[in-house]
Amino acid sequence: MGKEIFMSNPSRRRVYQESGRTRVGMCEVLLTPTKLKDGSYRENSPVRIYDTSGAWSDPSFHGDISLGLPKIRSEWIESRGDTEADEPVKSVEGTPFAGRKILRAKTGVGITQLDFARAGIITPEMEYVAVRENLAAANGIDDMSPDCPRNSLFIQHKGSEVPREITPEFVRSEVAAGRAIIPANINHPELEPMIIGRNFLTKINTNIGNSALASSKEEEVEKLLWSLKWGSDTVMDLSTGREISETRETIIRNCPAPVGTVPLYQALERAGGMVENLTWEIFREVLVEQARQGVDYFTIHAGVLRKFLPAASRRMCGIVSRGGAIMAKWILHNDSENFLYVHWDEICEIAARYDVAFSIGDGLRPGAVADANDEAQFGELKVQGELCKRAWSRGVQVMCEGPGHVPMQMISENMENQLEWCSEAPFYTLGPLVSDIAAGYDHISSAIGGAIIAWKGAAMLCYVTPKEHLSLPGKGDVRTGVVTYKLAAHAADLAKGHPASQYRDNAMSLARVEFRWEDQYNLSLDPDLAREFGGSKRERHCSMCGPRFCSMRANDEIREAFSSD
Amino acid sequence: MGKEIFMSNPSRRRVYQESGRTRVGMCEVLLTPTKLKDGSYRENSPVRIYDTSGAWSDPSFHGDISLGLPKIRSEWIESRGDTEADEPVKSVEGTPFAGRKILRAKTGVGITQLDFARAGIITPEMEYVAVRENLAAANGIDDMSPDCPRNSLFIQHKGSEVPREITPEFVRSEVAAGRAIIPANINHPELEPMIIGRNFLTKINTNIGNSALASSKEEEVEKLLWSLKWGSDTVMDLSTGREISETRETIIRNCPAPVGTVPLYQALERAGGMVENLTWEIFREVLVEQARQGVDYFTIHAGVLRKFLPAASRRMCGIVSRGGAIMAKWILHNDSENFLYVHWDEICEIAARYDVAFSIGDGLRPGAVADANDEAQFGELKVQGELCKRAWSRGVQVMCEGPGHVPMQMISENMENQLEWCSEAPFYTLGPLVSDIAAGYDHISSAIGGAIIAWKGAAMLCYVTPKEHLSLPGKGDVRTGVVTYKLAAHAADLAKGHPASQYRDNAMSLARVEFRWEDQYNLSLDPDLAREFGGSKRERHCSMCGPRFCSMRANDEIREAFSSD
Repeated sequence: MGKEIFMSNPSRRRVYQESGRTRVGMCEVLLTPTKLKDGSYRENSPVRIYDTSGAWSDPSFHGDISLGLPKIRSEWIESRGDTEADEPVKSVEGTPFAGRKILRAKTGVGITQLDFARAGIITPEMEYVAVRENLAAANGIDDMSPDCPRNSLFIQHKGSEVPREITPEFVRSEVAAGRAIIPANINHPELEPMIIGRNFLTKINTNIGNSALASSKEEEVEKLLWSLKWGSDTVMDLSTGREISETRETIIRNCPAPVGTVPLYQALERAGGMVENLTWEIFREVLVEQARQGVDYFTIHAGVLRKFLPAASRRMCGIVSRGGAIMAKWILHNDSENFLYVHWDEICEIAARYDVAFSIGDGLRPGAVADANDEAQFGELKVQGELCKRAWSRGVQVMCEGPGHVPMQMISENMENQLEWCSEAPFYTLGPLVSDIAAGYDHISSAIGGAIIAWKGAAMLCYVTPKEHLSLPGKGDVRTGVVTYKLAAHAADLAKGHPASQYRDNAMSLARVEFRWEDQYNLSLDPDLAREFGGSKRERHCSMCGPRFCSMRANDEIREAFSSD
Repeated sequence: MGKEIFMSNPSRRRVYQESGRTRVGMCEVLLTPTKLKDGSYRENSPVRIYDTSGAWSDPSFHGDISLGLPKIRSEWIESRGDTEADEPVKSVEGTPFAGRKILRAKTGVGITQLDFARAGIITPEMEYVAVRENLAAANGIDDMSPDCPRNSLFIQHKGSEVPREITPEFVRSEVAAGRAIIPANINHPELEPMIIGRNFLTKINTNIGNSALASSKEEEVEKLLWSLKWGSDTVMDLSTGREISETRETIIRNCPAPVGTVPLYQALERAGGMVENLTWEIFREVLVEQARQGVDYFTIHAGVLRKFLPAASRRMCGIVSRGGAIMAKWILHNDSENFLYVHWDEICEIAARYDVAFSIGDGLRPGAVADANDEAQFGELKVQGELCKRAWSRGVQVMCEGPGHVPMQMISENMENQLEWCSEAPFYTLGPLVSDIAAGYDHISSAIGGAIIAWKGAAMLCYVTPKEHLSLPGKGDVRTGVVTYKLAAHAADLAKGHPASQYRDNAMSLARVEFRWEDQYNLSLDPDLAREFGGSKRERHCSMCGPRFCSMRANDEIREAFSSD
């Protein structure tokens, strides 16, 4: 299992772009030539697109899961000289990765990307990110003007943000301001750095992980690879079943994307599944262990405070976040404040030592449109803002999680409040779902809300599959969820006017006009499905019109008639 | 074939609500009781939802396609005494419907719903519509205040429009103002009247129809029934293949929803498929024939003027509308102005005699995001506005068609211009698709744009299936397209704050909280798929969390802890 998932399409190949200290992986889509009237051919330049597949799509990669990915960051991290050896992770002793070197920051030294950014230092991680985000440079576009003449391959409509070039210095300044994060644990050297922030490409996350009910370690690694193939930017391992540490170790060593977790889930398992047995000490132990494994960001539900529970209890759907419900129950049982809130500074210190970023959980997100934007939700959001500031003061990179179920007309208020209350920290939302009645179609209900909120400023969207609310997603559901979210994210990038984000749409549309069917498939978000639906055709008419009169073909005549205009 | 498509779910039943001269069909979703702590049960009231299935879901209906649906409007139409017998439709002579009585307006008499509305007359059609739209009354909700207490089954967030009651007088006034249409050909007595306007529930249309390439009459009727089952509000028959008239006759006689066509398609077939042979006379003949058959609205591409062709020819994707391309080619070949524009007044007179509404085609809609909101598109939209006024002056009900491919940030401009230039005539859009690269997922790309534009004021959305741009949709694609669009339309209704549109979401969310799985399935937009994904379960935990700790179950404890608050 592994490489064959990525090798199925000869028209998509892994290429590398060298820049400074980095060698950045990209995907190149090869196009077929256009046959001209006189019988000659016009070549069509390949289109370079953002690539999340890492070495998995590189034919020269060994593809052995037990060996893991190349450690492209090791040299960068070690050359900084600010880390020292840490204890090994005991719970993975039986795995192929048992003897791996573990690092932590030297005492008193700031080693996070935020620390560097504030100090004015551009890291190789920042350089890598800048090249990845630069779709214009990757495709050789130098005229970034939105008023480019029609009929060229580069038309970029003006978006809500002014198009700009993504330079390493711009990356640094956004990280320094807290408006973006580069989740990059020093113990995840296999990572290809990426950035989450509203002035960059919109990112998506895939949740994988087994539950006590179903699925094996192998299935989860396979889901990881499929989600990378379809373009997931980060992966959250939400395992609660057997072999949690071993599964996560295999995932991290083979994942070129940041890996996030909800440490509370493993802590609860370690407490025997009983909230009554859960303690700060167990949680702390899990946190350190996961940081040593290389987890890049932690979801921590520190904003679920005791004072919000009465409001949450009056809701139609109460608390639907698993982490939120665990903490609410813990608060009730112990008649104490949320220990994650109480120990926040210590949690920050642990995270800072490994450069683990935070994704401050929204434990009180609405689970029904009836509960949207209510007292409990917005009360927690303000606390999330306070926690952001405390994390920043300790050098920790941070983003905030957001809803949930929110009807369209109430989405903007979420974004506006988050920007204000959380001082522009990146917003990472689950949809939002714009209706409650779409069981089986909740990937679409949430993609509608997700596209809107990302356009308005959310930096990352957590995917939702068609099985949401109904059962655990299988491989096919992961594919549907990831591709649907890539679409929502891309729609938001067009709407924001991200530099050259429209280039691929333009290439696709030209392929349509010229009946280059294979190019249409390969430029699509899901080439395999497009090819499955379209078939291997050569017709110069579309299937809706049929051969007798095709509007696309009629265009040739119309264009010819006015070619002298 | 027929009834069995509708009879699969015993928890959804057809009910009738009597009001004035009308007996309005609705769908009642039966819910299971809730088991309380003390072991007793609380009954849950059935939820009434808008129903498009007509008599097909009524167990007492004969279900014979060759006999057609009950003619519920015949008495209304005849009692008005303003019609006379017209010639039969020759091309359906071989069908079971050959001897059917055909009506037309008496000379000089205005018989359209617009004529009546302007004269201050409330027709049974208007009464029918008012009952259908009144989800609050149907569910016994009398407190329409948006500040209804939490935890009740009726929470309705404030939308962009102020909630109001839908009375017959309100329906009349909206039709009179041209802000809404009731497409209801006097030769379609089987119709259950419905309304298209932005101050009503958002409607969706399904395209069916064979092409020269594929599919039979039986397949198309089956697609019709499936689309009604999943909730399509109107159906467009876009057939271009064999037996066009016979297929349409069978569709209309069995369709409780308005049927729309693009008469130009049949005219082109009658001209041997050659644009060169197409004439106004052929078109006129087709128009009259289809009006006599009972087509409720005509798409007519009268806004594609010669002066817009140079701009269209400079586009990335040229003209992608089939009707638009036909007319452009005709204009070029004949070196004349569009005959639909030239003969507009005569077309209006034909339509007025049968009360056929117009859907003024957007032949120059953009087929790529690169072409969105350009000179050709907006030039035509202004002409659509002129054509609206001319139609109104002859008593014809009218709506305008809209795009197409438009990135999110450019959608609002479409809606604003349409409202202004077309004097608030209803806007009927195809999506819009918010990106070009989603082949295989274009139902989602367009549902994102569709939800947004309907929220902003579009009255009806034309569905898009996953096969868009790739091949002709099959039955399963029709289902996916229709359900996806019902979702987009419903999301828009929530966002507009349509009275009691949130009632069903609330019922769904309560069913979730109480683990009433069957109720969740039956309240969903697609109960069959939800049940297929969810399985027949009785667990009091959700599949994401598993049995050990479930956030929904934890809510019971939290709610109990604060029940005295």
